[in-house]
Amino acid sequence: MTKKPKIVIIGAGFGGIAIAKALKNKQVDVLIVDKHNYHNFQPLMYQVATGGLEPGSIAYPVRRIFRRFKNIQFRMAEVLEVDPKTNKLKTSAGTVDYDYLVVATGSQNNYFNFEPVKEQLLTLKSIPDALNLRSFIFQNLERAMLTKEIEKLTEILNVAIVGGGPAGIELAGALAEMKRYVIPRDFPNLDVSRMHVNLYEAAPRLLAAMSENASEKSEAYLKKLGINVFLNAKVSGYDGKKITLEDGSDFITDTVIWTAGVKGAPVKGLPQESLVRGNRLKVNAFNQIEGFENIFAIGDVASCITDDNPRGLPMLAPVAQQQGRLLSKNILRLISGKPLEAFRYKDKGTMATVGRKKAVVDLPKFKFQGSFAWFVWMFVHIFSLIGFRNKLLAFMDWFSNYISYDRPLGLIIRPYKRSKSKN
Amino acid sequence: MTKKPKIVIIGAGFGGIAIAKALKNKQVDVLIVDKHNYHNFQPLMYQVATGGLEPGSIAYPVRRIFRRFKNIQFRMAEVLEVDPKTNKLKTSAGTVDYDYLVVATGSQNNYFNFEPVKEQLLTLKSIPDALNLRSFIFQNLERAMLTKEIEKLTEILNVAIVGGGPAGIELAGALAEMKRYVIPRDFPNLDVSRMHVNLYEAAPRLLAAMSENASEKSEAYLKKLGINVFLNAKVSGYDGKKITLEDGSDFITDTVIWTAGVKGAPVKGLPQESLVRGNRLKVNAFNQIEGFENIFAIGDVASCITDDNPRGLPMLAPVAQQQGRLLSKNILRLISGKPLEAFRYKDKGTMATVGRKKAVVDLPKFKFQGSFAWFVWMFVHIFSLIGFRNKLLAFMDWFSNYISYDRPLGLIIRPYKRSKSKN
Repeated sequence: MTKKPKIVIIGAGFGGIAIAKALKNKQVDVLIVDKHNYHNFQPLMYQVATGGLEPGSIAYPVRRIFRRFKNIQFRMAEVLEVDPKTNKLKTSAGTVDYDYLVVATGSQNNYFNFEPVKEQLLTLKSIPDALNLRSFIFQNLERAMLTKEIEKLTEILNVAIVGGGPAGIELAGALAEMKRYVIPRDFPNLDVSRMHVNLYEAAPRLLAAMSENASEKSEAYLKKLGINVFLNAKVSGYDGKKITLEDGSDFITDTVIWTAGVKGAPVKGLPQESLVRGNRLKVNAFNQIEGFENIFAIGDVASCITDDNPRGLPMLAPVAQQQGRLLSKNILRLISGKPLEAFRYKDKGTMATVGRKKAVVDLPKFKFQGSFAWFVWMFVHIFSLIGFRNKLLAFMDWFSNYISYDRPLGLIIRPYKRSKSKN
Repeated sequence: MTKKPKIVIIGAGFGGIAIAKALKNKQVDVLIVDKHNYHNFQPLMYQVATGGLEPGSIAYPVRRIFRRFKNIQFRMAEVLEVDPKTNKLKTSAGTVDYDYLVVATGSQNNYFNFEPVKEQLLTLKSIPDALNLRSFIFQNLERAMLTKEIEKLTEILNVAIVGGGPAGIELAGALAEMKRYVIPRDFPNLDVSRMHVNLYEAAPRLLAAMSENASEKSEAYLKKLGINVFLNAKVSGYDGKKITLEDGSDFITDTVIWTAGVKGAPVKGLPQESLVRGNRLKVNAFNQIEGFENIFAIGDVASCITDDNPRGLPMLAPVAQQQGRLLSKNILRLISGKPLEAFRYKDKGTMATVGRKKAVVDLPKFKFQGSFAWFVWMFVHIFSLIGFRNKLLAFMDWFSNYISYDRPLGLIIRPYKRSKSKN
């Protein structure tokens, strides 16, 4: 019996899971390495943060996804470094040999000029982040009930969201709905009119990656919900109490949520030349990293620069998934000495929701907004979750939210203290 | 308008919630103080620890329980000290005046001779404890996959449970079921025969508070599931790797789960004489703490010693609930100058489950065990959960577990490192 080729995939995000699924029962051994033991559905992280969904509804253990497939193994470990010369990957749980390596490590927050104060910011990049944000929001509401001093109350109740992409507008919408429907019920003595949610976007429009229609409509929805939307608004500093803008204005708040951008999260050990704009790994049309036949990158961390896409493809789940699926075929072709197929992104559209019956959908040939867009958004997101239980839970919690205008989850399980290590 | 009498309740456990519910819409102002913003259903904590239920299924925000009742307020704060002379309660969120004070603070772990090594133990007393235990179990399984050395593997896979009360036997049963049904599916290369679960009980029988039938049957169930049950087994020490017993035997394990006993969790500021056996507050038949007309204790923290109950009533949810309900009436009687009614505990029975179709139920006049007992256990526990969502989720997760022999939740959201502070 000859040894089967070994494919090591770093990262159990959309890209990593897609390629591993496509390699089920093939004549290869697959090892997925991730620091978490679960895949999480990043687009719904803001729902976990605002008490709309449980972490267990948007995450699924990697081992369970591949439970029935003997050729797919999983290892929970931090990746330390790749050694392309010896085809070895060093991890916190020992060194692994590979024949083919797929870097599907995704992206990390890009704090830009806020890097020095990042410990003062809240974010949405992982489930612990989202749970910290959830705790922080509810802790602040509890604190607000006990605060008489107006200036302190302003600081506690105000929220600044930096970044008008999908995460920022979805979070702003959810907070606006909480302010309107949930907080008055649970905190009846609180003067919610003192709570202001400011959304800052550096570009001239929200959802810059979507259509003008989507930008305009999402802005209108947010304003209708009472969110203060600031465009061309460049944040310049934060001291833990007050966020300042380049135009000299400021806003008092102890809650600054950072959704202003991401950058690639590449692994160590690859040549410096591979790193391009956005901290991404430069790949060719077959997702190979330049100079290597057997090392690939897919998804957010990969950047395939073409004339059509001079800045690389957008950092979206469908890109990662499509690249993963094609790469599974290309690696099998490489193994059997067949020619590779170049990747072409099929844009199936993008969407974002602002809240109840308010969403924007851009399909390649058709753009629409409003109630129907919102139902489409919900349908697509429920069906994209992994596992029947997760789909059912999300459906139930959203259906109940739809009926009751309420959010099911307000537990402060682990109180969050800022500037302490986030574990 | 005369000021309404103010009743302050410390603790949102079974007792605190019961009295507050009974005071809804009465001519009193009620304030509940708890360090958590939720009530949790302690008897199902082991389910959270073993991935059977979500924390959100056994916990419910206090504010939501009383949302529609204007005379009931909540404050999330740590209680620091009571000053009975001035009728003031000091909390981490300011000082509160009371006319009547109800101490419903429940119990805390009693580590006995293991007090010096308590940081090395895992426990089940709060939701963070249960989540830490869950993370630890799944982290250990991940570690086991990477461990070749037999002695290390033994340490990682073995589990010791100290205490053969309901929490101990329920946890042992759940672990045995995980070992049999879940681990082989998710960790197919792991030799689970190396995993040994030892249950140590210092008394001559399990479930010492229940009938002999229940003790015998639960022991038989556990043995059938492969648990090593040790009776008259007094643990004497633990060094983080090996637990030793008074008889000189020992057991290598890094997982020692402490369910060996609890003691009262009284508040500071009450006279030293009030504290009796088990760190509980001595109360009279009206749940008044001796020497005070307006300070009461109910539930686990209260001890009403009578000829029938020379050691006080058992630390059970129904005792706390019945005391809370009667005390609500007695405080209203005090206010209107009527004579008080003495508390009498109505024992409606106790039950415990070892696992699938294995439970023991002691009713006052009838004791039974087995499948029917298990259905009764499930029915009673589902209906005791607060809120429709929690009932439905518990039902769904248990029903799915019943069909699939699987447990839904295996996410390591916050990895747990021992000897660090538990937040």
